[in-house]
Amino acid sequence: MTEYLFDADTQEALTPVGHGEWNARVSPMWNIDGVPNGGYLMALCLVAAGQEVSHPDPLSMTSHFVGPTKPGEATVASRVIKRGRSLSVTAVELVQNSRVTVTSLITWGDLSALSGPSGPLRPPPILPENSEMQGGPQERGASTFIERFDFLMPSDMAMGAAGRPTGRAEARGRMRFEDGRPPDLMSVPVFADGFPPAVFQLGHYGWAPTLELTIHFRARPHPGWLTIDLASSHLLEGAFEEDCYIWDSQDNLVAMSRQMGRTLVG
Amino acid sequence: MTEYLFDADTQEALTPVGHGEWNARVSPMWNIDGVPNGGYLMALCLVAAGQEVSHPDPLSMTSHFVGPTKPGEATVASRVIKRGRSLSVTAVELVQNSRVTVTSLITWGDLSALSGPSGPLRPPPILPENSEMQGGPQERGASTFIERFDFLMPSDMAMGAAGRPTGRAEARGRMRFEDGRPPDLMSVPVFADGFPPAVFQLGHYGWAPTLELTIHFRARPHPGWLTIDLASSHLLEGAFEEDCYIWDSQDNLVAMSRQMGRTLVG
Repeated sequence: MTEYLFDADTQEALTPVGHGEWNARVSPMWNIDGVPNGGYLMALCLVAAGQEVSHPDPLSMTSHFVGPTKPGEATVASRVIKRGRSLSVTAVELVQNSRVTVTSLITWGDLSALSGPSGPLRPPPILPENSEMQGGPQERGASTFIERFDFLMPSDMAMGAAGRPTGRAEARGRMRFEDGRPPDLMSVPVFADGFPPAVFQLGHYGWAPTLELTIHFRARPHPGWLTIDLASSHLLEGAFEEDCYIWDSQDNLVAMSRQMGRTLVG
Repeated sequence: MTEYLFDADTQEALTPVGHGEWNARVSPMWNIDGVPNGGYLMALCLVAAGQEVSHPDPLSMTSHFVGPTKPGEATVASRVIKRGRSLSVTAVELVQNSRVTVTSLITWGDLSALSGPSGPLRPPPILPENSEMQGGPQERGASTFIERFDFLMPSDMAMGAAGRPTGRAEARGRMRFEDGRPPDLMSVPVFADGFPPAVFQLGHYGWAPTLELTIHFRARPHPGWLTIDLASSHLLEGAFEEDCYIWDSQDNLVAMSRQMGRTLVG
């Protein structure tokens, strides 16, 4: 059982039915264009799987998005592959209508128990003062996800996310829960998959499905704004990687993630 | 069944026993310090799982290294999670002495069928002429893996890999099979996990176990040398990420990988 409470919605969405299974209610409150955000689905699976292991922190989580998930009833099934002294490993699947929609592997440990050399520490990007940034995506519509966060972006990138691209596959800014809840490790997936994609800044504005997303969890976040830095370095025939780095309000790197995505719009 | 033949050792190491299972012989020919290279173990699993799907190419593969694997008898078990029109997803486990030692998820597709916009394309690093580079790791001993490859590294990094670190967590150079076999996608994991780690260049020279390694496969490689570019951007309390990019002899990005590792030496 972890010490984290991502949020009441997520916890309450899971009803244990034993043997590492939960009945899950996929909330419609985390939709992008009517579809549940992939990071939200990862967080549901992460919160469930964390209840099966004694290690407090996820260290690395990979999810493959196998098929579409809809708001509504689902099942989460977690299997412990290893319970070790320093690490545990779990596999967890989200199942809807008898089909796996998201499958994940998670390695668990204790971030506070790590010890060893430190070396290069990736610093956060230099951003304008919060008061000089813009409020991020305004186009909500079927994107209930966006209502749950405050966003801040430099002006050029905020316009890029709204259809006036910068021409560089980079996006950065700040993000926090709109209701004031502090971020925790269980909520990292929604931040890692929640910022307007870097390929929007190339003008590929539209549906960009994620095939696979991997997160390395590096530190428990302090309360406050998270700083997000996104970039795609290689877009070829519609397939791209997106790298995301997340720092907390104390400038500690909380997580780095990479996804393989597809952009379906020219 | 894929069109690839990673190598005779790998193919011959797998004896199908039905129901997505193979008896496997983990070869002692791919050891680093007496322990099978993680990329070799991934390649074994990849070759096996590829026989269960109709899509020719891996697109994304993640492996979590659950426990130690030794040369000798093992079992590979693959489960098809989805057989789709454009994508398939498989889970595959390497089991030794009734314990899972490596667990992986793989999304499969057809790289030649991708179509969509192309944008930034990460270029290979600028390297000295091959004739001006050094031959890489010389200290073989219990590292049979090293004998199977030719390595070329700029002089400073070659010395760094042998104990005279540059102080920057970067390494690059070229790598190919020693026996002249061309690289293929099935062999990408051994290249992604085969170059001397970037943290060696910080002086952390020694055992650096991988917890998790994710590979994005981006193009089928042309024959010839592969160019490898490694960097670690964040080393904190012994935990690091290592990013690896691999280009073929035509300067096409073949793969990018990232691992979470631990360095156990100060």
